[in-house]
Amino acid sequence: MKKKTNKKRISKRGLPPGSSVYVGKERSHETNIELITYDCETLVVDYEFDLHNLSKLDPLKNHWFNINAIHEVDVVDKICKHFGIHPLTIEDLLNTFQRPKTDDFDTYIFFTLKMLEIKHEDVYLNVEDEQVSFILGKNFVLSFQEKPGDVFDLIRDRLQDKTKKVRQKGTDYLTFALLDVIVDSYIELLESFTIKIEEIENKILDTPRDEHLNLIQDIKYELINLRKYIYPTREAIYKILRSDSGLIKKDVFKYFNDLQDHIEQVIENVDIMRELNANQREMYLSMISLKTNKVMEFLTIITSIFIPITFIVGIYGMNFKYMPELEYKYAYPITWGVMILMVVSMILWFKKRKWL
Amino acid sequence: MKKKTNKKRISKRGLPPGSSVYVGKERSHETNIELITYDCETLVVDYEFDLHNLSKLDPLKNHWFNINAIHEVDVVDKICKHFGIHPLTIEDLLNTFQRPKTDDFDTYIFFTLKMLEIKHEDVYLNVEDEQVSFILGKNFVLSFQEKPGDVFDLIRDRLQDKTKKVRQKGTDYLTFALLDVIVDSYIELLESFTIKIEEIENKILDTPRDEHLNLIQDIKYELINLRKYIYPTREAIYKILRSDSGLIKKDVFKYFNDLQDHIEQVIENVDIMRELNANQREMYLSMISLKTNKVMEFLTIITSIFIPITFIVGIYGMNFKYMPELEYKYAYPITWGVMILMVVSMILWFKKRKWL
Amino acid sequence: MKKKTNKKRISKRGLPPGSSVYVGKERSHETNIELITYDCETLVVDYEFDLHNLSKLDPLKNHWFNINAIHEVDVVDKICKHFGIHPLTIEDLLNTFQRPKTDDFDTYIFFTLKMLEIKHEDVYLNVEDEQVSFILGKNFVLSFQEKPGDVFDLIRDRLQDKTKKVRQKGTDYLTFALLDVIVDSYIELLESFTIKIEEIENKILDTPRDEHLNLIQDIKYELINLRKYIYPTREAIYKILRSDSGLIKKDVFKYFNDLQDHIEQVIENVDIMRELNANQREMYLSMISLKTNKVMEFLTIITSIFIPITFIVGIYGMNFKYMPELEYKYAYPITWGVMILMVVSMILWFKKRKWL
Amino acid sequence: MKKKTNKKRISKRGLPPGSSVYVGKERSHETNIELITYDCETLVVDYEFDLHNLSKLDPLKNHWFNINAIHEVDVVDKICKHFGIHPLTIEDLLNTFQRPKTDDFDTYIFFTLKMLEIKHEDVYLNVEDEQVSFILGKNFVLSFQEKPGDVFDLIRDRLQDKTKKVRQKGTDYLTFALLDVIVDSYIELLESFTIKIEEIENKILDTPRDEHLNLIQDIKYELINLRKYIYPTREAIYKILRSDSGLIKKDVFKYFNDLQDHIEQVIENVDIMRELNANQREMYLSMISLKTNKVMEFLTIITSIFIPITFIVGIYGMNFKYMPELEYKYAYPITWGVMILMVVSMILWFKKRKWL
Amino acid sequence: MKKKTNKKRISKRGLPPGSSVYVGKERSHETNIELITYDCETLVVDYEFDLHNLSKLDPLKNHWFNINAIHEVDVVDKICKHFGIHPLTIEDLLNTFQRPKTDDFDTYIFFTLKMLEIKHEDVYLNVEDEQVSFILGKNFVLSFQEKPGDVFDLIRDRLQDKTKKVRQKGTDYLTFALLDVIVDSYIELLESFTIKIEEIENKILDTPRDEHLNLIQDIKYELINLRKYIYPTREAIYKILRSDSGLIKKDVFKYFNDLQDHIEQVIENVDIMRELNANQREMYLSMISLKTNKVMEFLTIITSIFIPITFIVGIYGMNFKYMPELEYKYAYPITWGVMILMVVSMILWFKKRKWL
Repeated sequence: MKKKTNKKRISKRGLPPGSSVYVGKERSHETNIELITYDCETLVVDYEFDLHNLSKLDPLKNHWFNINAIHEVDVVDKICKHFGIHPLTIEDLLNTFQRPKTDDFDTYIFFTLKMLEIKHEDVYLNVEDEQVSFILGKNFVLSFQEKPGDVFDLIRDRLQDKTKKVRQKGTDYLTFALLDVIVDSYIELLESFTIKIEEIENKILDTPRDEHLNLIQDIKYELINLRKYIYPTREAIYKILRSDSGLIKKDVFKYFNDLQDHIEQVIENVDIMRELNANQREMYLSMISLKTNKVMEFLTIITSIFIPITFIVGIYGMNFKYMPELEYKYAYPITWGVMILMVVSMILWFKKRKWL
Repeated sequence: MKKKTNKKRISKRGLPPGSSVYVGKERSHETNIELITYDCETLVVDYEFDLHNLSKLDPLKNHWFNINAIHEVDVVDKICKHFGIHPLTIEDLLNTFQRPKTDDFDTYIFFTLKMLEIKHEDVYLNVEDEQVSFILGKNFVLSFQEKPGDVFDLIRDRLQDKTKKVRQKGTDYLTFALLDVIVDSYIELLESFTIKIEEIENKILDTPRDEHLNLIQDIKYELINLRKYIYPTREAIYKILRSDSGLIKKDVFKYFNDLQDHIEQVIENVDIMRELNANQREMYLSMISLKTNKVMEFLTIITSIFIPITFIVGIYGMNFKYMPELEYKYAYPITWGVMILMVVSMILWFKKRKWL
Repeated sequence: MKKKTNKKRISKRGLPPGSSVYVGKERSHETNIELITYDCETLVVDYEFDLHNLSKLDPLKNHWFNINAIHEVDVVDKICKHFGIHPLTIEDLLNTFQRPKTDDFDTYIFFTLKMLEIKHEDVYLNVEDEQVSFILGKNFVLSFQEKPGDVFDLIRDRLQDKTKKVRQKGTDYLTFALLDVIVDSYIELLESFTIKIEEIENKILDTPRDEHLNLIQDIKYELINLRKYIYPTREAIYKILRSDSGLIKKDVFKYFNDLQDHIEQVIENVDIMRELNANQREMYLSMISLKTNKVMEFLTIITSIFIPITFIVGIYGMNFKYMPELEYKYAYPITWGVMILMVVSMILWFKKRKWL
Repeated sequence: MKKKTNKKRISKRGLPPGSSVYVGKERSHETNIELITYDCETLVVDYEFDLHNLSKLDPLKNHWFNINAIHEVDVVDKICKHFGIHPLTIEDLLNTFQRPKTDDFDTYIFFTLKMLEIKHEDVYLNVEDEQVSFILGKNFVLSFQEKPGDVFDLIRDRLQDKTKKVRQKGTDYLTFALLDVIVDSYIELLESFTIKIEEIENKILDTPRDEHLNLIQDIKYELINLRKYIYPTREAIYKILRSDSGLIKKDVFKYFNDLQDHIEQVIENVDIMRELNANQREMYLSMISLKTNKVMEFLTIITSIFIPITFIVGIYGMNFKYMPELEYKYAYPITWGVMILMVVSMILWFKKRKWL
Repeated sequence: MKKKTNKKRISKRGLPPGSSVYVGKERSHETNIELITYDCETLVVDYEFDLHNLSKLDPLKNHWFNINAIHEVDVVDKICKHFGIHPLTIEDLLNTFQRPKTDDFDTYIFFTLKMLEIKHEDVYLNVEDEQVSFILGKNFVLSFQEKPGDVFDLIRDRLQDKTKKVRQKGTDYLTFALLDVIVDSYIELLESFTIKIEEIENKILDTPRDEHLNLIQDIKYELINLRKYIYPTREAIYKILRSDSGLIKKDVFKYFNDLQDHIEQVIENVDIMRELNANQREMYLSMISLKTNKVMEFLTIITSIFIPITFIVGIYGMNFKYMPELEYKYAYPITWGVMILMVVSMILWFKKRKWL
């Protein structure tokens, strides 16, 4: 279980706040900007947008810039400056350790959150996070991803269709749609956790083994991590709803309300999973303790039965010259009888005490 | 203990929000719409309402549409569109995994919650949930159930009686009455839990057994589930009370206040049951630990008594040529005497230490 | 430990809200209405008030109706209707499972809470609750008790005395005085708990025994119950203070503030007792665990001392033909010497490890 | 560990609220009133103020009445009535079980809190509380203590000095100074706890013994008590800051802000001590459990080594007529060899499992 | 693990609030004042500022006084009085046990917090704290440190550069930059904790040993300490944001918002570390308990296998005259056969119960 360390962040210390520095994993792929320009009537997709055309944008249309990778600071800087983005916002979107948040500037709303994906590693779950940021302006949306991916394909497809709401409404609805895809993916993610938790439960109820404790522990760590990403997302969505920038039109508000409802449900489920996980840990330890108890009882029974009769056979193993019983003819069978009687009464006594 | 998985929900990903898709278990029965039209004077019941008559409704009367099953999306869609219901609301009422909530639109209030029923499975409790949604408009109430059922029969009967308040007051009071029936059923449900918890308690106090831990565990799971449904219901009722749509008249407000009081009581009881349940778990483990302690003490006593005297008989079992005691005439009875003395003093010592 | 079950409540399901139905234990005594009419000058007590005289009440005097038992629904109904009490209020005061609450209607304030009394059952405490409700109107107070009792005698006595504030001030002060008597009785009740808890503590510190765990458990249950009654009482008192009905005059407000202070103190004490109780449980288990530890150490010491020397005597019990030691004259005393040496060094080693 | 019981309080039940009754321990010393009259120019101290002079007070000067003992109800009553103190306030200041609080009347502010002092009893700490109340009026301060003491000497000294703020400013600053002395004494008190907790920690880390658990338990009780006194004090100070009586001038407000800061720090420290205390308890139990584990391992090793070889010597102690080994010449040394081999391999196996 | 004791604080008791007394460790280095005077155009650094020049400051420029050590009370007093600092503020900045806080005076904002540094002591972490206070006035910033240090060098360097924001903006931005450096250092600090916690985790998962519990305990103490310093810092930053003094210009507000975001992230990480730490403790104890369980099982198996066969060999060690088996020729090999059979069936039975 390796945790991501914030090493890069350290190297930023001393730089003035608002410096454009990429903070995150090394990336090898090229930064690529995709531009979709649309209104109700037309839709044009430019897969490799050239930054020199920034000044030629049609102000009457909606523009969605999807910046596919953010490690090339220059490109991000240039596009942001064109749209009048504050240096602090640029710093935040380049810092991939930034916690989810909303910043409400006068001319745009900045929103950053995490895309979460599960990697199954052997029997363990591993949640990978990728930072996604959005800037919603009057007639544009900028979306920034850490690496190229196809999560937004669903939205691209819907945009093609003239009858869809995402096409008819403005960039505020588009932002909602993009956020909605991500929040929906959280619900899928929790599905994997639910399945894993049930799997562990069944295993424990069968025979509890040492490695199950590791599995439970692992789930716990991942849930702590999840919470770290999802709780601030809730706050961030609340902040969008309280935004008074006027960038989100009244009829789109209902949709953000719905989004808030979804994230609320995600958080409730995370909390329930945390409870179930804690519960499994307790159950595991109870079962171990029950097992110890049974082992103890078995030991006690065996010992209590054999120790007294071993003492008796010891007595007649003594070499005293004058031991009248040794000479007596029926001594041996009588001794056996006494010993059998002792064992039987011992067993009956255990039965009565419900140890057997 | 199987938990309901949200599998269907996944398949919705990528669909635009506000799409009318039924999300829930497969249902085989037919969707059926029941319409009760009433005012103080007259009451007409139409058990199989034909959607083509939607336009012929008398605007001066109150209409209660009870849609008995929601898996036929077309029917739900058509009736909702007639009353100007927002697509997001339709999406929510078709999604049977929706958490309880209130949505306050300008022309109607949407309220969704769970009907909970206990199924006894062997010795375990199992809470089954069914989604029930209400849409309260100016002179109509739409109620949506997952499957046909008779929970509202009590209200139907009361509606027949001209002197009852539900007949004299408007659709706001009717909505209250329907919600009240459901919240009252929660109190009954908790009754079953109380009985089960007392039953387990008596069993544990008698003899704690492994399966009791499973029973306690099971109750815990079901209470976590209950809480998931009931806590948001409280929020939802509060939201109705804060609604400023004017759909709930001032004299009906008192009744919703009362409803809020009931749900508060339900929540208090759920919390108390959770405490009692946690308590039982602790008690069970304490009793197991006490039992281990007694087993240990028994083992210690038996071992401590027999090990020293077994050593003594071992001594005189040695075959040394020159062992003066062996020849001595009264050696054997003296040895017995010493051993009895040892046992007695050991027992007295245990008595003093309160181990016996 | 039997808990009160809400069975009666179930039978009410399906009745319209606001129906006058008595929900509680069967009562055999007669309902009886006591009326005290007073102002600064005169005071008249009518121990058996006849409901037909309701219309002849002097509107310039203060009236305190004490309805001694509430299971005769007709009587309660009649008197309530005379004073214009809302059906929901009547329902609440007849339902003895109602949680403490304040309802602020325009012409009266309704307040219901529990009178709590301790019954000592063998070594256990048992809290019995009786519902008491108050309706404070412009110049009247109605008080409803489940069964006749003398808790209000203190107030009756004070009313006799012209110089007392309760006589000089209005019905708002009378209501305060009645509530104050009940809240003061909670403090007495907690006294019994404090004494019981100290008693258990002393017993545990002496010798912890199985039944002590039951005692601790019992206190815990009763405290959970207490909290159920007392927490909502606090809310209810706060709600009185926020009431804007004008029924409580400004100079009487200070007294309700004081009442709020008292209930706050009661709650603090309940919380502290819950902590002490949890603490005792932990202490008990720690002491059991310490005891197990000592038993284990004793077993280990006995076993470790005797097992090696028993092995030695076993060796010379072997019947090999060629065992030189057996023939050696001083073998027997030497063997004894070796064994004593082993025991002594074992004991010294235990001393060093602080096991002895 | 004896806890103070509220017995006296019970005897008050039935008395009308606002009765002047002393509730607390019996006191033998005389009530004594000290009056300090001062302004910037002059300062007069009257150690035995005669109540008949109450009417002759100079209205242009500041008066600090320090009533040294409150069990003589008449004296307290007389002085309070002169200054127009409400009966409820008098009741509160005479009741030494009153929780800390602020009451804001129109013409004065009433403030009551606890003076706390540590008594070392053998190895245990014991916190003694004394009630101190203040009444701040326009140009007077009344301070009430349970018994004569010198905690306010520091203030008396400062008052002597014309250049000190306490002399130059009004009675509001004097009240602050008096409260500040008490809150500062809490910080000293926590010092004793810190030292005690460190002491216990060192003892436990050395060798954990039974009595340490009692010490930890004792600290826990005392911290629960402390919290009972200090938490409401915070609330009370907040309430002073929100007072709108105008009795505290704007330039003195800063000082009360500072006081609030101090009490906040006291509470933080109490909370941290509670955590450390809980931690020590857990640590103690962990160490006991580690010790049990070691004892168990030792027992297991000893038993596992000797039981098999004891079996072997048992075999050749059998008296069968036909046992070829018994006749064999080297049987005895070979048996020894086998047994030594068994012991060595057992020890190696334990080493491998890290039990040795 | 030594905790800093507040001894010095005690000696202050009785002093009037607002006295200038240094409360903290003894310091041997000289107090030294550094002054940086700057505007957009010019920047002058005076490393050894002479207090006599205080009156000659250019009111049109920004002044940053960095007072490198605060134990020389006179110097601090003189400079503070020049800028009209309230005595309470001076008291707070001289008291190095002051908790982090913001005080908002009319003409300046006072802010005090802790600089935290990790000292590695053997395998333990040790957090050292140094108090840093800031006073932000109209065109000046005073910063006070306990000892000379270079943490602000980063800011000095940036100030040299005309193009940097810190140079172009006023003293409000400078204050932000200084605070930001400190809050950034908290993130570095948490890095050390993360590494330590991971290190412990790996060790425990390998072989849990006694000293690991001490390590976990140590981390816990340090996290409790951290929290004590960092939680109030959050409150303090919130209070700056709510300040209505007008000293922080609108365009600098965004930066303080960002600072608040950082401290929020620090607190989240501290909380997560506390959870991980508690988790490790539980894991450690679970592993110890698992180990005990295994030791027990081993003991039980060994004992259960050998005790019965030892009994059998005991039987034929008896010296009875009439024991037919002893004479029988194949008795010895048959006995062996029986014993081997017993051992094998015992082992098979253990296998079935999964103890082997």
